[in-house]
Amino acid sequence: MTDKVRAAVMTAPRAPIELREIPWPALEPGSAMLRTRFSEVCGTDVHLHHGKLAGVPYPIIPGHVSVGEIAAMRGELRDVHGVPFKEGDMVTFLDVHETCGKCYECLVTKQTTRCAKRKVYGITYGVADGPLGGWADHIWMKPGVKLLRFPKGVDPALFIAGGCGLVTSIHAVERGEVSLGKSVAVLGAGPVGIAAAALARLAGAHPVIVIGAPQGRLDFVATMGATHGISLDVPHEERAAQVRALTNGRGVDVVIEAAGDPRALPQALDLVRDGGRVVIAGQYTDSGDVSVNPHSQVNRKHVEIRGCWGCDFSHFYRAVAVLGEQGKSLPWAGAVSERYTLERAGEALAAVERRDVIKAVIAP
Amino acid sequence: MTDKVRAAVMTAPRAPIELREIPWPALEPGSAMLRTRFSEVCGTDVHLHHGKLAGVPYPIIPGHVSVGEIAAMRGELRDVHGVPFKEGDMVTFLDVHETCGKCYECLVTKQTTRCAKRKVYGITYGVADGPLGGWADHIWMKPGVKLLRFPKGVDPALFIAGGCGLVTSIHAVERGEVSLGKSVAVLGAGPVGIAAAALARLAGAHPVIVIGAPQGRLDFVATMGATHGISLDVPHEERAAQVRALTNGRGVDVVIEAAGDPRALPQALDLVRDGGRVVIAGQYTDSGDVSVNPHSQVNRKHVEIRGCWGCDFSHFYRAVAVLGEQGKSLPWAGAVSERYTLERAGEALAAVERRDVIKAVIAP
Amino acid sequence: MTDKVRAAVMTAPRAPIELREIPWPALEPGSAMLRTRFSEVCGTDVHLHHGKLAGVPYPIIPGHVSVGEIAAMRGELRDVHGVPFKEGDMVTFLDVHETCGKCYECLVTKQTTRCAKRKVYGITYGVADGPLGGWADHIWMKPGVKLLRFPKGVDPALFIAGGCGLVTSIHAVERGEVSLGKSVAVLGAGPVGIAAAALARLAGAHPVIVIGAPQGRLDFVATMGATHGISLDVPHEERAAQVRALTNGRGVDVVIEAAGDPRALPQALDLVRDGGRVVIAGQYTDSGDVSVNPHSQVNRKHVEIRGCWGCDFSHFYRAVAVLGEQGKSLPWAGAVSERYTLERAGEALAAVERRDVIKAVIAP
Amino acid sequence: MTDKVRAAVMTAPRAPIELREIPWPALEPGSAMLRTRFSEVCGTDVHLHHGKLAGVPYPIIPGHVSVGEIAAMRGELRDVHGVPFKEGDMVTFLDVHETCGKCYECLVTKQTTRCAKRKVYGITYGVADGPLGGWADHIWMKPGVKLLRFPKGVDPALFIAGGCGLVTSIHAVERGEVSLGKSVAVLGAGPVGIAAAALARLAGAHPVIVIGAPQGRLDFVATMGATHGISLDVPHEERAAQVRALTNGRGVDVVIEAAGDPRALPQALDLVRDGGRVVIAGQYTDSGDVSVNPHSQVNRKHVEIRGCWGCDFSHFYRAVAVLGEQGKSLPWAGAVSERYTLERAGEALAAVERRDVIKAVIAP
Repeated sequence: MTDKVRAAVMTAPRAPIELREIPWPALEPGSAMLRTRFSEVCGTDVHLHHGKLAGVPYPIIPGHVSVGEIAAMRGELRDVHGVPFKEGDMVTFLDVHETCGKCYECLVTKQTTRCAKRKVYGITYGVADGPLGGWADHIWMKPGVKLLRFPKGVDPALFIAGGCGLVTSIHAVERGEVSLGKSVAVLGAGPVGIAAAALARLAGAHPVIVIGAPQGRLDFVATMGATHGISLDVPHEERAAQVRALTNGRGVDVVIEAAGDPRALPQALDLVRDGGRVVIAGQYTDSGDVSVNPHSQVNRKHVEIRGCWGCDFSHFYRAVAVLGEQGKSLPWAGAVSERYTLERAGEALAAVERRDVIKAVIAP
Repeated sequence: MTDKVRAAVMTAPRAPIELREIPWPALEPGSAMLRTRFSEVCGTDVHLHHGKLAGVPYPIIPGHVSVGEIAAMRGELRDVHGVPFKEGDMVTFLDVHETCGKCYECLVTKQTTRCAKRKVYGITYGVADGPLGGWADHIWMKPGVKLLRFPKGVDPALFIAGGCGLVTSIHAVERGEVSLGKSVAVLGAGPVGIAAAALARLAGAHPVIVIGAPQGRLDFVATMGATHGISLDVPHEERAAQVRALTNGRGVDVVIEAAGDPRALPQALDLVRDGGRVVIAGQYTDSGDVSVNPHSQVNRKHVEIRGCWGCDFSHFYRAVAVLGEQGKSLPWAGAVSERYTLERAGEALAAVERRDVIKAVIAP
Repeated sequence: MTDKVRAAVMTAPRAPIELREIPWPALEPGSAMLRTRFSEVCGTDVHLHHGKLAGVPYPIIPGHVSVGEIAAMRGELRDVHGVPFKEGDMVTFLDVHETCGKCYECLVTKQTTRCAKRKVYGITYGVADGPLGGWADHIWMKPGVKLLRFPKGVDPALFIAGGCGLVTSIHAVERGEVSLGKSVAVLGAGPVGIAAAALARLAGAHPVIVIGAPQGRLDFVATMGATHGISLDVPHEERAAQVRALTNGRGVDVVIEAAGDPRALPQALDLVRDGGRVVIAGQYTDSGDVSVNPHSQVNRKHVEIRGCWGCDFSHFYRAVAVLGEQGKSLPWAGAVSERYTLERAGEALAAVERRDVIKAVIAP
Repeated sequence: MTDKVRAAVMTAPRAPIELREIPWPALEPGSAMLRTRFSEVCGTDVHLHHGKLAGVPYPIIPGHVSVGEIAAMRGELRDVHGVPFKEGDMVTFLDVHETCGKCYECLVTKQTTRCAKRKVYGITYGVADGPLGGWADHIWMKPGVKLLRFPKGVDPALFIAGGCGLVTSIHAVERGEVSLGKSVAVLGAGPVGIAAAALARLAGAHPVIVIGAPQGRLDFVATMGATHGISLDVPHEERAAQVRALTNGRGVDVVIEAAGDPRALPQALDLVRDGGRVVIAGQYTDSGDVSVNPHSQVNRKHVEIRGCWGCDFSHFYRAVAVLGEQGKSLPWAGAVSERYTLERAGEALAAVERRDVIKAVIAP
């Protein structure tokens, strides 16, 4: 054991990533330290670096979805089935915690992803709060953080390849009520879109049409379960015509938006069939307004649009379970082009920002 | 019996309403003629007169929701419970019929209000098709039109006072899953908004906040069950603040849009609580596009938006049933300022267009 | 302040209720003491006295739904909207607490009423745990217990008259998806049945048929919103015929079972229409098996049967809210025949057991 | 063309199957004759032969799910997408038709499988009604019967191998809301159970545990997607223990009952997790009552039980679509041990009755 945590720190928006040493925290009962195996570099980290999220306490240690071994623990920690953890266990954890369990969102509407007290590793904690981000050689598991072991046969590298996009997609596919025999279009071929397409197919959807770019990602998502890919180089009207041609002229039962561009909202409404459902899961930051037609795109179309914000433990649990079984034969690892040391975290971030890679992973 | 039907005819958009005589149709088995007691003049008729609906076969006999006695019938007609109709029965009928029962919308998605074959009395039939609109002394019930008797104690005048807005609102309240203890805001104080507020209250919602104009309508809707009224004279931001003040700072569980103005869509998204539901029921014609913010108004808000198009028999049946019981003590009749003869149909239409009256009724 | 709590104690099944003094507990931060205004004597207390519940740590202080003023508190307590409590506030609290927030039921299936860690005031706490039941002059609010203020204008006496039956019924009516225009039959005319009928009517159901006994309870429930009452003196087959006669020969859309007798399950299946829904809410203890026919009563009938166990905070919150608004004009207080001092708690229990009273209330 | 239809006729319960010639019907507009390629012999035919269904107009031509080419047609027939059929098209059709479209079940509850007017090929039509069963060289498509073409690449032999069990299972899996990541147990390893297991797996369920017999069927269903098989030779309590062992001690999320034995109902309630869902789809005929415990098996368990009766066009449509895509790689054909000529229809029936074969097919 050491008395310092080495971390790659984002000191401010647009500033270079710096390596720093952070004090090793005192472990209260019910807390632990993970020795980081992998942590993810995802689109949210790019948003963080662009300063697009409100209320971020820079300097921060980015990295919200991570994997590691329990290096130290104090008191008893148990998983959701009551099985105790022990040192050496390889685990991941739900990055969102401190959902308060006391507010209207937690108790009455039961939409805990809207709890105002939620804290998120790598996003809403600053360096001053302790080693609470994944781009570090150790991560502090505060009391109450929900850890999960991997099912037998699940390689942690597989999980981190799905990562945050996988967990988000579990929620999006659930919120879209994607089920056997439904036709699905996914807008966006980033980590969320790729995972959403894979999960929709595992859920029995057909066709599963991905609209995105560049071609390399469309090629990859085809290996993950997408039945059709349409390039963003094709004009929207023609893309819509192709979707209708694949669905007896109607449009798809469900659209999952994972693109982030505001224009994806009205486009989704053009691609869905009358009475179908659109899940808006990719508008994580504010990229501006967009025009829709309430008559032709909403009312007359009898359509349903569902925002999909964040994830709770059920999505995280199911993501790990799906990787362990239904999804284990898919080439998730193909999403990770390269692993980066802590020293190269800035490079990893830049590669994700330039969309050179689908996903980068920090392996300290 | 006569050999002609006298009808008030809309010959073309913007043209004056004319009285004409239409041939009495030959009755096939399963068809009937109603002697019109009442027919409604509603906002749709104004849209028809403005030429805002596509594919209308002018000249037409307007009047889609109507009430009458069976003056003649051929063969057997039965209600939904299998009870035969007889001459002299006072009935109303679902204006939408010829839902095909054979298409994807009828059979697979089971969203029959999107069936492309639907025909609507007073809207998609022309004079050339026969006396198929309510602004006439008789209305032809084609085979397959679904008639309903009134429950004991239901005055047909009460039903026509609710009329098309009542049936539409049954659908909107159902689609909003308004139920005991939910807070509701209704946008619009026309016939649909008024009925939606009344039904929401009958469904146990509280508060039921109506945003509309003019003050006379807000006063009326207060007698129908609305617990709070907010005038359109109040700026939107202040209206939103008032709604939050009534809902512990959160916004309402359900917004029912019955306003028709495109701006009502983003406004509804501002009034609903995180994770709540917005029903878009008032955008019956195309009044243009509007801007929304996919991030803050949809995705982060985890909201659900549901278009609500048309009505099917279940809504019509339930509308009549609710009037017979739960809703019978409400002052529906207050919505009808004046009854007009066929000769004065043009006046009735003008009064509705000027919003001088909430609703006008033709009593031939 | 005192240093003892006076309590009416159930020392063992079938033993007489005894008055005892219990030590005043040390208040940890986030805890409080209520000065009891009212506590309920309900059917569960009879079951407790009959020894029909497993794992009860006798001796116990019964009384799970209670009302009181905050007599003392330590640290900060806030309601679900974040508003702090202060001494003197009149409150009630959710008797079920220590739902663990960590198990599969709490986190994955999100059915927290099945959390194995739940603790219930007056049932799963013993005298040895402290003054954790309502039949006492003070009740200890442990940290994490969820308190609620009464809305302005809600008399605590009104709430205790609804009590546990009201909260249970909120859940049952929600689980039955009772909504505007649905026909409902309620089996049982005890506190749960009476409240279920009242809530169904407030939710816009019609008819609301209560089957129960004795006649006095049927008379009372008619004042609470039931539209029809059928006595248990009428044979089941005839009761079923009456229900069909009120529903066009079909049976009701929803049956809410609040009777407790196992025979109510197959009877409910006879009363519901094809494709309807039965909520089983009254089988709180094991009163034996019963025969059903899987073909004619379940499969061919295309029916839905839903068990309904316990309540969570959302039901409790909504119960208080409904009393504050939609339900405030109903004669809830008519359910309480008499108030009993702590000394007479045994009498109160006996009166409930003999069904002499619908509900008895302890007012220390 | 011929002027007679050769058919294998079930003249009465328990009587031998006879070959008869039936008059070729006059074709009204909108009707057709199919040249039968395949027709199914299923468990329902055994029930028919045992006289267990009420209201069957013997003599009948059995065979409800069938495949054939259009040999003759009059007027225009179109599929659900409006595409006209032509002579020579290879099609199948929904055996249930004349759903009335006018009754409470068709129009208000929208549960058309409970429409009292439904007619079923091979079951509710007698020889006197015409050649309206599949065990014949031709089958009369009355006006309104809903035909479907096979998607490109779907071998009709594959469809008939799934047959009625496939269509029924589509409904059961839909009614069970089986979706990605759910654990499922299927009771019964007949055609419905096998198809339900296959569809549950295609829908992303895991594990998919089949409980049935004999071993040969468990072996087959393992090739169709079941992840675990448990023999009926294992006592129920031990089977339940095995199911719990596969589900972290909880029981499965969804049980689909396709066994037909009344005892399967309480057994399903033992196998499902708290708060889970049981679909009762196998109790097609009355095999007697069974005991359940309303407290421990329904109420406390907070479970949901759904009867599942018949199928509508949406299930039929989706069954064909699933075979065309998601399910095309499964060895459906393995369910058909042998094809029988019309002359050997009695042998086929006997083989199904003895459970020698999973399914027999008539190929005239």
